[in-house]
Amino acid sequence: MTDTIQRPSGRRADALRHVRITRHYTKHAEGSVLVEFGDTKVICTASVAERVPEFLRDRGQGWLTAEYGMLPRATHTRSDREAARGKQTGRTQEIQRLIGRALRSVFDLGRLGPRTLHIDCDVIQADGGTRTASITGAFVAAHDAVAKLLAAGRIEQSPITDYVAAISVGVYESTPVLDLDYDEDSQCDTDMNVVMTGEGGFVEIQGTAEGVPFSRDEMNRLLDLAQSGITQLIQKQKEALGA
Amino acid sequence: MTDTIQRPSGRRADALRHVRITRHYTKHAEGSVLVEFGDTKVICTASVAERVPEFLRDRGQGWLTAEYGMLPRATHTRSDREAARGKQTGRTQEIQRLIGRALRSVFDLGRLGPRTLHIDCDVIQADGGTRTASITGAFVAAHDAVAKLLAAGRIEQSPITDYVAAISVGVYESTPVLDLDYDEDSQCDTDMNVVMTGEGGFVEIQGTAEGVPFSRDEMNRLLDLAQSGITQLIQKQKEALGA
Amino acid sequence: MTDTIQRPSGRRADALRHVRITRHYTKHAEGSVLVEFGDTKVICTASVAERVPEFLRDRGQGWLTAEYGMLPRATHTRSDREAARGKQTGRTQEIQRLIGRALRSVFDLGRLGPRTLHIDCDVIQADGGTRTASITGAFVAAHDAVAKLLAAGRIEQSPITDYVAAISVGVYESTPVLDLDYDEDSQCDTDMNVVMTGEGGFVEIQGTAEGVPFSRDEMNRLLDLAQSGITQLIQKQKEALGA
Amino acid sequence: MTDTIQRPSGRRADALRHVRITRHYTKHAEGSVLVEFGDTKVICTASVAERVPEFLRDRGQGWLTAEYGMLPRATHTRSDREAARGKQTGRTQEIQRLIGRALRSVFDLGRLGPRTLHIDCDVIQADGGTRTASITGAFVAAHDAVAKLLAAGRIEQSPITDYVAAISVGVYESTPVLDLDYDEDSQCDTDMNVVMTGEGGFVEIQGTAEGVPFSRDEMNRLLDLAQSGITQLIQKQKEALGA
Amino acid sequence: MTDTIQRPSGRRADALRHVRITRHYTKHAEGSVLVEFGDTKVICTASVAERVPEFLRDRGQGWLTAEYGMLPRATHTRSDREAARGKQTGRTQEIQRLIGRALRSVFDLGRLGPRTLHIDCDVIQADGGTRTASITGAFVAAHDAVAKLLAAGRIEQSPITDYVAAISVGVYESTPVLDLDYDEDSQCDTDMNVVMTGEGGFVEIQGTAEGVPFSRDEMNRLLDLAQSGITQLIQKQKEALGA
Amino acid sequence: MTDTIQRPSGRRADALRHVRITRHYTKHAEGSVLVEFGDTKVICTASVAERVPEFLRDRGQGWLTAEYGMLPRATHTRSDREAARGKQTGRTQEIQRLIGRALRSVFDLGRLGPRTLHIDCDVIQADGGTRTASITGAFVAAHDAVAKLLAAGRIEQSPITDYVAAISVGVYESTPVLDLDYDEDSQCDTDMNVVMTGEGGFVEIQGTAEGVPFSRDEMNRLLDLAQSGITQLIQKQKEALGA
Repeated sequence: MTDTIQRPSGRRADALRHVRITRHYTKHAEGSVLVEFGDTKVICTASVAERVPEFLRDRGQGWLTAEYGMLPRATHTRSDREAARGKQTGRTQEIQRLIGRALRSVFDLGRLGPRTLHIDCDVIQADGGTRTASITGAFVAAHDAVAKLLAAGRIEQSPITDYVAAISVGVYESTPVLDLDYDEDSQCDTDMNVVMTGEGGFVEIQGTAEGVPFSRDEMNRLLDLAQSGITQLIQKQKEALGA
Repeated sequence: MTDTIQRPSGRRADALRHVRITRHYTKHAEGSVLVEFGDTKVICTASVAERVPEFLRDRGQGWLTAEYGMLPRATHTRSDREAARGKQTGRTQEIQRLIGRALRSVFDLGRLGPRTLHIDCDVIQADGGTRTASITGAFVAAHDAVAKLLAAGRIEQSPITDYVAAISVGVYESTPVLDLDYDEDSQCDTDMNVVMTGEGGFVEIQGTAEGVPFSRDEMNRLLDLAQSGITQLIQKQKEALGA
Repeated sequence: MTDTIQRPSGRRADALRHVRITRHYTKHAEGSVLVEFGDTKVICTASVAERVPEFLRDRGQGWLTAEYGMLPRATHTRSDREAARGKQTGRTQEIQRLIGRALRSVFDLGRLGPRTLHIDCDVIQADGGTRTASITGAFVAAHDAVAKLLAAGRIEQSPITDYVAAISVGVYESTPVLDLDYDEDSQCDTDMNVVMTGEGGFVEIQGTAEGVPFSRDEMNRLLDLAQSGITQLIQKQKEALGA
Repeated sequence: MTDTIQRPSGRRADALRHVRITRHYTKHAEGSVLVEFGDTKVICTASVAERVPEFLRDRGQGWLTAEYGMLPRATHTRSDREAARGKQTGRTQEIQRLIGRALRSVFDLGRLGPRTLHIDCDVIQADGGTRTASITGAFVAAHDAVAKLLAAGRIEQSPITDYVAAISVGVYESTPVLDLDYDEDSQCDTDMNVVMTGEGGFVEIQGTAEGVPFSRDEMNRLLDLAQSGITQLIQKQKEALGA
Repeated sequence: MTDTIQRPSGRRADALRHVRITRHYTKHAEGSVLVEFGDTKVICTASVAERVPEFLRDRGQGWLTAEYGMLPRATHTRSDREAARGKQTGRTQEIQRLIGRALRSVFDLGRLGPRTLHIDCDVIQADGGTRTASITGAFVAAHDAVAKLLAAGRIEQSPITDYVAAISVGVYESTPVLDLDYDEDSQCDTDMNVVMTGEGGFVEIQGTAEGVPFSRDEMNRLLDLAQSGITQLIQKQKEALGA
Repeated sequence: MTDTIQRPSGRRADALRHVRITRHYTKHAEGSVLVEFGDTKVICTASVAERVPEFLRDRGQGWLTAEYGMLPRATHTRSDREAARGKQTGRTQEIQRLIGRALRSVFDLGRLGPRTLHIDCDVIQADGGTRTASITGAFVAAHDAVAKLLAAGRIEQSPITDYVAAISVGVYESTPVLDLDYDEDSQCDTDMNVVMTGEGGFVEIQGTAEGVPFSRDEMNRLLDLAQSGITQLIQKQKEALGA
């Protein structure tokens, strides 16, 4: 059935865009990845700092936090630069909080020791799904940063307990479809972002009806799609990491 | 089965807290409601302004937007006042965006005409579930404001197309439970906020695994609970409105 | 003579509005009071923090500071939320500085020990006189917080040295009147806020001629009225405290 | 009696500091005055702008507003530059609001026409009494700006209806004293700022007990002193203006 | 002589790093260039907006303005994200003002018509010379944006009057060297940024002695080097543009 | 040749404006200078603080930093007050960074010990050349502050290693001219600010073509003029310091 609709992208309802994960994309960061979901391109870096936020002082454990940004002309029309406006939008804050929670769900922060892993996800070209691409790429960047800590003997055991990736799903002309690009996203009634682990557990589900509310049945079909998409994304992560 | 666990609150797994909706709580706003979910108390007001944001200029339609705040000592320990810090936290922005989306899902903004409905949800006492109480109370405040516009002949047809309410659910000691208070929320592995309409459609689902990821099966049981809770909340709204 | 004018409120020139002080209004704060001067309603909380500001570090004494806010729709027309605008207005800062000075005038901060009493006054409904209601209610909240410190043995002697309350007076159609509500305030030539102690000393006098400057004689009559009003308010505080 | 105490400044209890008003101090402003109260030196400028704030749009009347600042090293120890901190302190806002109210009390804004008079008071050296010196000097600057408007035929009648000046008084070692310098101010129990017109009316009285509350009798003696001081200041203004 | 020193980079004193200009780097902007000076990589986009700033309203001419940013981990150690800190550093503002001036020097803004060209230079990897790379790349992006306006018939004549590029020079161990990378920059006594046109005119010279002041003779030799470097850069621009 | 043009100011092409340096201008600062370049008047203070910025903690050396501001009506038309707008402009930040670098070029910060010299340059009247007057005056203020530290035995050896001063030059109607006032500055094609030491070394050169780019030959003639001007300014500094 999902084959019969014509998505704007021309993809099958259950098809991801072309996904590419390029490691070592920039040279300074402990982990640096360019992740591409079709025309959506995000630079994800992981930086190690030998300190923890105030609320974790003297607890012996570490922290992982994320920030998100978009180049002003990553989008169809130029957006104001947040640094020039002097504050981050609510959307930016919502996304960076999501990225942080997603990554922390597969981190044993005790094993990280008293240090902070800063994740930066900067969108250089946007075509829908920037938050899901960010999570998927950031995991690989974080993995590389952890590998450096292990190789340098600064930690003994990896704090990473599982894989984690994210994908969007939506209802386009009554049909659930996987991995929305910008055109599809703006025409979908429902938009859902799903974060899952390698073990298949749900870390986060954020579904929003943009127009008509969605039914329990639609939701089940969306989750089926998301699960299949995330399985493929984690496979891509493993290939990128040579795991 | 849900009867066998002992929730911190002593409630049954599928029991809401005592819910109370007091209309006409303050005197200036077009709609003003005190909503109480147990010890969580939120003042929700709806204010009508005869103008629309720039992006809707000359479109003939209206807008609904929401803001959220907490009195500094609404919580166990005093939080910084956001006005004094000079900015709203990411959490605040996330919640007020959610409230706005939830309410707009049952508004036909064309019928509202070129005016804005400002929803303000201010928590005077917090004990978990402030965002779900806010949505549930804000709907009633918005309904009162719309009634005034209708009574004054400023609009001809109500822009409200359905009821909308919200509730939290979570997994406490492996058992799905309804309407988490603060103590339960901090001990739950999974926390999910669900927004639904009177027709039973989903408007928003936000589920987060705080510790162990959750399974598809747990999610289904959480949604069952949420649906039953929201049905009761909408009944409360109807009673409050004398509908 | 003062009986012959017709105030907008219908009150006698020397009559206070109905004053109500409700203790234990919210549950988390060490002191929590709802104070009502007629339709003006303010939640005043007192919170104890076991630290002092930098400038008092290692001095062995405590500090008391106040913050003030208004819910956006506490007023006739909705005001911008200060947290969203990113800064407090000059009016807000002026009021919260006044509240702090007023309370500190009856506190022996040495006896408080190295801790801070945070006073929060949040107006949920405004009808004139929010700053005087705030001071009057905040004293009771502070008293309750101090009582808890004494009961817990955290301080040995109360730092409170006297009562303190505040009232507004103004010149309405050439006649001095007590406790202005919003309608009266906007029609008065002179507006004066007076803060006094239980002993009858002046802590603060702030008089402003909105239109015609006021004479020495008018001022004397305004102060007479204020003294009588504050005597009644302190009586209300005593009753509320069961003193 | 007032002769018997020894003020830190060596002045008699009822003596002003040496007051100097220098007009045309800087060359660009329509009115520019250096006012000196002893070692307190403030540059007061009045600038005319051919527009009014939004809330006065199309009302045909004008506006007068004031801003206040201190050079960082106007004080004994260097203060943070407000422009660098990114916000004005509560004290600054309180003072500039006071200056604006004081000047507006002697302005008929209808006669000013649809333009704004911007008053800027910048303290280049502070030794107590900066707000009273500011008001006293700003009046002269405003007068010069108005004279230019009259001379150019841009207004027909002066909007200035009276003189206005301000002075501080305080209780030093139980004795009321006039025009406190910094040393005296920090040792006074009570500090009162008084703004009066040439006609002898009170525009503003702001009295604060820093330590012991003050009595009605002390207040009366403070106001006597203030009246005599302001009479002298207005004489200085007249001399400076050649009136 | 310049051949005898050993630069940290191993380059000859008068050698540029490998320079690469990639057009059409991202897909949304009217002009989008990745410019690389060795390991320094900057995305430069040019965006056309059909409006002008307030100060040019109704003048019939256009405007060109530039913004600059760095990804937080473009550098050796992670820098704070300016959007999160809520303001741009002085360095950022200085650089973006420089880029704007440099580009405007070769623009006839009257020919651009009432529109704004927004230049965004975002450093994704920094290794010294980010501002000179930005100017050099931004020119090409601006050229592409102008070509689109010409092709679409929105302007009749190109507003671009000449080429413009920029390079840094410095004194390393007493020898003037061209195009400093990060290691060299931090060891140089003098650092000079030079902006020149295709015609060979100077648009901007900014030379700073980091340690020992520089002499007139050194300056002359630095300018010789800069001129030769810029000639090569403009050749690269021409090749990239197929001119 | 330079005699043949008619500058707006009537000065010879190589003539400085009347320069006046008044020490001990305000009483609190360790160094306080009023510097006048014709109608440009800047108050420069140097303040000593017994602490260093975080990045110099425990290095044993000191720091010198500068801030710059303009009174709102120092200029022809009133500018917004930066403190009220809540941020410094890019121009302000650029200038204060320049002043800091210029002064540090003649300071041996090791000899200053673990303290900070805060330079504040506040323009009370602007007529072009405010940054060059600031640097020239700030040197004298810093010298006075250092003299106090030496006299008090808080440092043993002066950290000042040379004189430093600054001047602007420009091309007016094809002729290089010295020390531009506001009228000249706005009509010049090229504007260059030059900072030099007493030894004749260049500390900073910032040249900008406002219209037509400038040639190597023009630049040489500008530097000749600047050198002669700075020689005179340093002579003025010496006279002011009685050196």
